[in-house]
Amino acid sequence: MTKLDQIRLYLNQEKAELAIFSDSVTINYLTGFLCDPHERQMFLFVYHDKAPVLFVPALEVARAEQLLDFPVFGYVDSENPWEKIRSILPSTAAKTIYAEFDHLNITKFQGLQSVFSGRFDNLTPYIQRMRLIKSADEIQKMLIAGEFADKAVNVGFDNISLDVTETDIIAQIEFEMKKQGISKMSFETMVLTGNNAANPHGIPGTNKIENNALLLFDLGVETLGYTSDMTRTVAVGKPDQFKLDIYQLCLEAQLTALDMIKPGVTAAQVDAAARQVIEKAGYGDYFNHRLGHGIGMDVHEFPSIMAGNDLILEEGMCFSVEPGIYIPGKVGVRIEDCGHVTKDGFELFTQTPKELLYFEG
Amino acid sequence: MTKLDQIRLYLNQEKAELAIFSDSVTINYLTGFLCDPHERQMFLFVYHDKAPVLFVPALEVARAEQLLDFPVFGYVDSENPWEKIRSILPSTAAKTIYAEFDHLNITKFQGLQSVFSGRFDNLTPYIQRMRLIKSADEIQKMLIAGEFADKAVNVGFDNISLDVTETDIIAQIEFEMKKQGISKMSFETMVLTGNNAANPHGIPGTNKIENNALLLFDLGVETLGYTSDMTRTVAVGKPDQFKLDIYQLCLEAQLTALDMIKPGVTAAQVDAAARQVIEKAGYGDYFNHRLGHGIGMDVHEFPSIMAGNDLILEEGMCFSVEPGIYIPGKVGVRIEDCGHVTKDGFELFTQTPKELLYFEG
Repeated sequence: MTKLDQIRLYLNQEKAELAIFSDSVTINYLTGFLCDPHERQMFLFVYHDKAPVLFVPALEVARAEQLLDFPVFGYVDSENPWEKIRSILPSTAAKTIYAEFDHLNITKFQGLQSVFSGRFDNLTPYIQRMRLIKSADEIQKMLIAGEFADKAVNVGFDNISLDVTETDIIAQIEFEMKKQGISKMSFETMVLTGNNAANPHGIPGTNKIENNALLLFDLGVETLGYTSDMTRTVAVGKPDQFKLDIYQLCLEAQLTALDMIKPGVTAAQVDAAARQVIEKAGYGDYFNHRLGHGIGMDVHEFPSIMAGNDLILEEGMCFSVEPGIYIPGKVGVRIEDCGHVTKDGFELFTQTPKELLYFEG
Repeated sequence: MTKLDQIRLYLNQEKAELAIFSDSVTINYLTGFLCDPHERQMFLFVYHDKAPVLFVPALEVARAEQLLDFPVFGYVDSENPWEKIRSILPSTAAKTIYAEFDHLNITKFQGLQSVFSGRFDNLTPYIQRMRLIKSADEIQKMLIAGEFADKAVNVGFDNISLDVTETDIIAQIEFEMKKQGISKMSFETMVLTGNNAANPHGIPGTNKIENNALLLFDLGVETLGYTSDMTRTVAVGKPDQFKLDIYQLCLEAQLTALDMIKPGVTAAQVDAAARQVIEKAGYGDYFNHRLGHGIGMDVHEFPSIMAGNDLILEEGMCFSVEPGIYIPGKVGVRIEDCGHVTKDGFELFTQTPKELLYFEG
């Protein structure tokens, strides 16, 4: 059953006639057609009983038609997209219409309401649920994205030197990835030295790499429509014992969490397992974010691995496990891997070692 | 008058009590605080009669507080953001509430409706209008962003060779920009050779640079919160006369449009001026997009330079002028500069020459 069939089945179950998709990631997920329409309009209309219709900016029509086996319609900038939609769609008599409420702004919503008189209901939870469980094919792509993240962080390691800045290392990493065919990192690469790493949302700059300090890399790539995300913290020179202790504590927290992940455990339990290790040592206040986030086509998606999330983990769920300890002015450590829940455990997408690596200053 | 004062003034004029901003670009525009909250919630609440309040993920509070002179509140992932907003805001009795309908998805909207019982009205047109006219300070930043685009395209020129691929050149351009402190290109850099350039939305790949063909660069940077965007098409080796003729036609169209821009002219008239040049030569069907887009903090914003847009140009408006001619399988040319409307003309942000440049194959 294709993903579009699954949507049709859901519509029939729910006695709804139409699902309207507006998020380019969801449209890619459902059809394999990837397009960023920027401020222009793009919608995928999936009917319970007829072929879907894709509506895109005119420039994208040829590429979409090549890829898809259902009708594609375009509009040019000088046309009113809502009028065009009204004129091309096979029927607008749908009574119940599903749409992605998380990806539909009010302007678009009002535009659609000018075309469809039916009642709108929220499809976001269903799509999130669908995307939550990755297929074998998706996991294969996530493994490839993970391999590239391992390569990227190793380019970073190869470029550590006291003569360069955080930004210099980022430039090298992204250059090498581009050369290997990666057109896009999955977010802005972070290389943070010393106290800058002690800020969980630190911004890389022209700081030279500090000696006798920790150095943090947080990066990922986008490939085949899927993303990766990993963090490694390494030693430059000879960091003092306190920094090394904090590193070990963070690592212990991560390994403890990784060790307990399997179907049947809840997201909150995994978060708590890591958090307790850090709290017990007295540093709970310095681990001030959730343990992890889901990952897939988006670098942040469901499930959220955090307190209060009683979601029971199932085979095929993919997420990050990334405890961090940030003590302003002193030390910052984060260790992150993403992986997928297997029949009886958790397989990581990234393989770079986690015992503390030392580099010469 | 600060931009926040302008919003307060507007609220009082319209007898509204509250404006709620949810777009990170608008929040940066109004306050100077730049933050991408990803899937988390961020709102700026601007009251008609009291100090604004910024609501952000907990991780961002310290940085925001350093920058802003009004209250900042955070929430952690395990908290319900809507309950938190209800508990921290000074008053929720607003009767008329403005929000950015173009940047508020239905889920967020429903969340806000659970907090505020007032009637929501659309602030997007007012903000678009505000952002449409750039101040001298903003234009200064756009000129700097433009200078970097000139540098970037010249890095591209320096790396033209038949031994390298489109992606290789992109890697070099972005590497050099990173080294110069540019953390982000304003969109995915495009280097398109030969027939790939004949696709207005072509995707760069591992094609080697073609000899005796045209080569297209489309790129921009983000700096100081503002963006640039430019396109140059150059010759590699000795392209045939037809390609050269199409280049000259595209250039003539661009120069004709640039020449007529001044306050009082409409956006549609500028589009028509360029389009007529190309239509007259018989290639109108191959110029299948609008002439230009507004630019500022976003690389695509208002005004749209296209048929049907009767907006009268005013001093301070910034936009691209980018005619293109794409003849599949034969040739693709686009020439693009952005600039700002002056008292009596149009000053460009980018200075790279436009007579056809030749590079050795």
